[in-house]
Amino acid sequence: MEKIKVGILGATGAVGQRFAVLLADHPWFEVTALTGSDRTVGQTYAEGCRWVLPVEMPDYVRNLAVLPTEPGMDAQILFSALPADNAREAEPRLAEAGYAVFSNASSHRMWPDVPLLIPEVNHEHIALVEVQRKQRGWKGFVVPLPNCTTTGLAVTLKPLLDRFGVRFVLMTSMQAMSGAGRSPGVIGLDILDNVIPFIPKEEEKVQRETQKILGTLGECGVAPAQFAVSCTCTRVNVLDGHTESVFASLDADVTEAEVAAAMRDYDGGLCALGLPTAPPRFIHVHDDPYRPQPRLDRDMNNGMTTVVGRLRKDAALPNGMKYVLVSHNTKMGAARGAVLTAELLVKQGLIN
Amino acid sequence: MEKIKVGILGATGAVGQRFAVLLADHPWFEVTALTGSDRTVGQTYAEGCRWVLPVEMPDYVRNLAVLPTEPGMDAQILFSALPADNAREAEPRLAEAGYAVFSNASSHRMWPDVPLLIPEVNHEHIALVEVQRKQRGWKGFVVPLPNCTTTGLAVTLKPLLDRFGVRFVLMTSMQAMSGAGRSPGVIGLDILDNVIPFIPKEEEKVQRETQKILGTLGECGVAPAQFAVSCTCTRVNVLDGHTESVFASLDADVTEAEVAAAMRDYDGGLCALGLPTAPPRFIHVHDDPYRPQPRLDRDMNNGMTTVVGRLRKDAALPNGMKYVLVSHNTKMGAARGAVLTAELLVKQGLIN
Amino acid sequence: MEKIKVGILGATGAVGQRFAVLLADHPWFEVTALTGSDRTVGQTYAEGCRWVLPVEMPDYVRNLAVLPTEPGMDAQILFSALPADNAREAEPRLAEAGYAVFSNASSHRMWPDVPLLIPEVNHEHIALVEVQRKQRGWKGFVVPLPNCTTTGLAVTLKPLLDRFGVRFVLMTSMQAMSGAGRSPGVIGLDILDNVIPFIPKEEEKVQRETQKILGTLGECGVAPAQFAVSCTCTRVNVLDGHTESVFASLDADVTEAEVAAAMRDYDGGLCALGLPTAPPRFIHVHDDPYRPQPRLDRDMNNGMTTVVGRLRKDAALPNGMKYVLVSHNTKMGAARGAVLTAELLVKQGLIN
Amino acid sequence: MEKIKVGILGATGAVGQRFAVLLADHPWFEVTALTGSDRTVGQTYAEGCRWVLPVEMPDYVRNLAVLPTEPGMDAQILFSALPADNAREAEPRLAEAGYAVFSNASSHRMWPDVPLLIPEVNHEHIALVEVQRKQRGWKGFVVPLPNCTTTGLAVTLKPLLDRFGVRFVLMTSMQAMSGAGRSPGVIGLDILDNVIPFIPKEEEKVQRETQKILGTLGECGVAPAQFAVSCTCTRVNVLDGHTESVFASLDADVTEAEVAAAMRDYDGGLCALGLPTAPPRFIHVHDDPYRPQPRLDRDMNNGMTTVVGRLRKDAALPNGMKYVLVSHNTKMGAARGAVLTAELLVKQGLIN
Repeated sequence: MEKIKVGILGATGAVGQRFAVLLADHPWFEVTALTGSDRTVGQTYAEGCRWVLPVEMPDYVRNLAVLPTEPGMDAQILFSALPADNAREAEPRLAEAGYAVFSNASSHRMWPDVPLLIPEVNHEHIALVEVQRKQRGWKGFVVPLPNCTTTGLAVTLKPLLDRFGVRFVLMTSMQAMSGAGRSPGVIGLDILDNVIPFIPKEEEKVQRETQKILGTLGECGVAPAQFAVSCTCTRVNVLDGHTESVFASLDADVTEAEVAAAMRDYDGGLCALGLPTAPPRFIHVHDDPYRPQPRLDRDMNNGMTTVVGRLRKDAALPNGMKYVLVSHNTKMGAARGAVLTAELLVKQGLIN
Repeated sequence: MEKIKVGILGATGAVGQRFAVLLADHPWFEVTALTGSDRTVGQTYAEGCRWVLPVEMPDYVRNLAVLPTEPGMDAQILFSALPADNAREAEPRLAEAGYAVFSNASSHRMWPDVPLLIPEVNHEHIALVEVQRKQRGWKGFVVPLPNCTTTGLAVTLKPLLDRFGVRFVLMTSMQAMSGAGRSPGVIGLDILDNVIPFIPKEEEKVQRETQKILGTLGECGVAPAQFAVSCTCTRVNVLDGHTESVFASLDADVTEAEVAAAMRDYDGGLCALGLPTAPPRFIHVHDDPYRPQPRLDRDMNNGMTTVVGRLRKDAALPNGMKYVLVSHNTKMGAARGAVLTAELLVKQGLIN
Repeated sequence: MEKIKVGILGATGAVGQRFAVLLADHPWFEVTALTGSDRTVGQTYAEGCRWVLPVEMPDYVRNLAVLPTEPGMDAQILFSALPADNAREAEPRLAEAGYAVFSNASSHRMWPDVPLLIPEVNHEHIALVEVQRKQRGWKGFVVPLPNCTTTGLAVTLKPLLDRFGVRFVLMTSMQAMSGAGRSPGVIGLDILDNVIPFIPKEEEKVQRETQKILGTLGECGVAPAQFAVSCTCTRVNVLDGHTESVFASLDADVTEAEVAAAMRDYDGGLCALGLPTAPPRFIHVHDDPYRPQPRLDRDMNNGMTTVVGRLRKDAALPNGMKYVLVSHNTKMGAARGAVLTAELLVKQGLIN
Repeated sequence: MEKIKVGILGATGAVGQRFAVLLADHPWFEVTALTGSDRTVGQTYAEGCRWVLPVEMPDYVRNLAVLPTEPGMDAQILFSALPADNAREAEPRLAEAGYAVFSNASSHRMWPDVPLLIPEVNHEHIALVEVQRKQRGWKGFVVPLPNCTTTGLAVTLKPLLDRFGVRFVLMTSMQAMSGAGRSPGVIGLDILDNVIPFIPKEEEKVQRETQKILGTLGECGVAPAQFAVSCTCTRVNVLDGHTESVFASLDADVTEAEVAAAMRDYDGGLCALGLPTAPPRFIHVHDDPYRPQPRLDRDMNNGMTTVVGRLRKDAALPNGMKYVLVSHNTKMGAARGAVLTAELLVKQGLIN
């Protein structure tokens, strides 16, 4: 099979660099276009990019020319690492021009005709892609990725919702620094020997996006899930991997063992599809009470598995269940998740 | 006024060292006895003690002799920094012999005739001291301090309970390493770039102790508070200061401003008593959403004030309210809290 | 005695804030002027300043008006926390107008008619102040503070130079993050679980400034000390306090005990002067091989004492001696050091 | 080729676990024996071992029985992760019985008939193996690995010594916590926001071992290299990877470029041998002044390459040259280095 040509928008930043690394040997995709800021356009990628990742820059990108973020790229799929402000304007223009745009930006997540996809959770929402195309008269489309803190929560709630029903959810996150980026992100002086109890706009995103992801597809959009989500988001001195302490009130009175089994069995119908980036399982449940830990668990299955532990009944809530999860915020929760989503749409025949 | 003679049990460990420091210039108390393990008995404190605190060893203790932990000490009050195993056996024996024993150990906290005191929260529970003496035929008594994670939670819930009523409480803690001590406590290799989601027995203690502290004094003990408490306790890479993310369901529908006012006004009838260790206020409420932070807030008023922030209504719970608190686990939550408690009992005429 | 009026230039930044805190109760100085950027001029300090220090903003500065950095301030002494670019232009203009300017910026440190003062090391260099005034026709003068990494090295080398002679010095620093400021300073993602082996321009500054500080005053300037200084400067995950590993080749073959005594006895003729900010001793030498440690030792005597340990003969060098030092980079090495220097010049009658 | 049977001594500890992981798919070696403490003998490895590594326990070891550390194991090669006390007694006994013992313990490093091998540095010292066998009448032999701090220093000095001559070397290390193990190793409370300036016995080991490794093989042992080595060893808050700041005085006056070329070209005659664990190059030299950093560079070529940067002439020393290196203390400096050494001896026909 000939590889599908893909581009990376905003390729010189940290998120763009992660796309460049993980697309290096992709069996279906081939990077043929990279875009950057005006300053870097016309340079080679190696010239225009201050590399910040611990792995080395892959050879294949070194000599690619940095292009402007405009139609005319020789690619079908575009992975967007653009900042929200640029994304808001550029991504719709590129979708209109026919590209399939997978975006890490928050700009379009809550549009009614845009699916907020986590492949193993809500792939039926893909149907919105056609709604989007038709309503807007676009040849391409935009599919945004959820916020990285939402992803682990939604993945673990899905089997609970399907099997036992969910009344409401309370979550406290302990988020890694890589979620804040590098401009300047979290300052070393602020986080050493410390916890920062606030991340602007994060809690609203998690609450809203979780309901959309777990909502029901209707004629003209997604009806949000009816259970309430409330959270407190904090930053801790961790490089990668968001830890979340979850308290859930379920519809049914179930045991820890039943919940663990529901999570372990869950594959969202995805494992049979043979997507290259899909992990062998989407949720791993530890019995060891000292797990999950972000440093030890974030990279399970290349960071594509959400790792759960400390599953216990919660006596304070009606049918209460509590657990802790770790999700890799820059892998499943960002670039890798975007690639998995693109693979799914290719498999479903939406990109060709 | 002549100073009251006090002893420190287990004086050579880290907790004992903190007692030695903070009693150095106490206006009411004078340290006249120090006890240590068999190995150190007979040595001077300076010889027997491997000092681990960042401040220097106070001169007054250097040449005091280390005594065995037995009756015969020339002191009325004993502050106990004994490990739980030793405390279980030694503290009752010393109470029987007439000493007023204030203990950091968990051994006796749940005895029905033992008050679990936080002076600004439940000083009426002091009445149990007489019950304890009478029932056991002791001349002295044992008053244990609550677990350090319980303290900040109980202090902040008290004004909510008094004014608005509490239905249930869910809490996720991010606890400092000093809570685990040094034998070996938290290993550097385990906590760097990490969160550890489990602290053995901690959650049970917080749940049980919070209900006792906020319970109602009856004829023969404390009837535990009727609201449920559920928590998940984690360890983060912080030296001192426990951070807790609290979600509470109240009886009344109140605003953030009403809750903030209730907390700010709260003094538990203590400020008028003139206790030397009492802070000017027991709860500080920040409006800045980036606070409280353990490094910036743990030392407010010598670590005796519980610092609250991020007070918001919680839409997921009935009359939901959520907030974040920071409490200094080795000050208010340990040695300093014990001294404040002793001051209260002196003021009330129970020690003389 | 009536207090001397002082101003703080660039008062709204982190360094300026430290000046505001430490001048709050100064027995000789009274802050009467604060300057800030164009954006903040006309606001009160409380309005114009985003406070970043762990201690609270002192009340006395809250309502002071932020002024432009220009002549016309009602003050004799100006403590400058201006960035180097602004300092280069503004400080000479203010010195010309009659102010005594004490500067943290590196701009003027190497001017031949400018003394680079550490009060306990080279107060005889003060004579350059008159040279500076005369040559330039200024009514006031500029006195810069050395780089914070230079200070601890120069303080500890001075008694060695005086008593035993120094041939050359090799130093590796492990510097705290606060030395890099907050714009953005050291990014949390870069320093966690890491060491950064390079700090731009730092090594050249330390080498050059050490020689000037320890040099000999002549008719028309300072003849740099003749021994070579070579260093490698690194950044480690520490908040405050620079640690330096020093290898020195001396002129004389001396014992560790002789070197320790030379350091302990050293007071640079300063202790007799009664300067308010001077510590009881300038160098503390630990016998415990595990010290100095930045967290435990940086605050000795309010951060004004350089703390030394691990003093050992070095067999690889002629008359080799090696040691480790900790110096508080934002106290002795910055704001507090500037205040001590100003106190010295007041005492010497150069400001009145 | 049939695989050579190997055993792991002290297999249940952290170092033993690393051996178990890296021998999982070794092309030449097959693990057939594991030993542990009396408590664990008779259990399976999965039962007897508290696994502490971030990667999972390899399946092949799970059901191997834990044996006592005694002759009778079905293996030719033994990799020893025994603590020094046990190693001192057990390793000679096993060597006598015919095993080729490769040891991480410091016990036998300085014996005159024991080679202290780093394969790419001094493989000619292998000749001592026959001396050892003959003198002691042993069928097998003991080959210890150098201290992990020595390794990076010796590897980088070797090309300088060969090409330019070395007069003396001064080194300051910033060592990772994994070097201290877990019993309890470095306590989190001690290292957060801190540097610890002392590691017992470390400096003596580095000085002595570097001279032996770089010494000249004679009839009856190694004549130590004649240049002096002096160091100060500190601990920093880093998981893995020792950073060392090196100042060297050479015999010849050479440029940075010549030194960089000497290091880059160096392969110690090893690359041609086709050893499975050998990296493509032994020394990597960065031009980027911000490198090497332990977190970014420790894993280059599976942690087998020593990474150098900040190469500069040093004006303070005769023919001075200074640089910074990062070496992975638990890979090249421990288990992986031991496996490479065993591969070399197999290739040379000393094990068959």
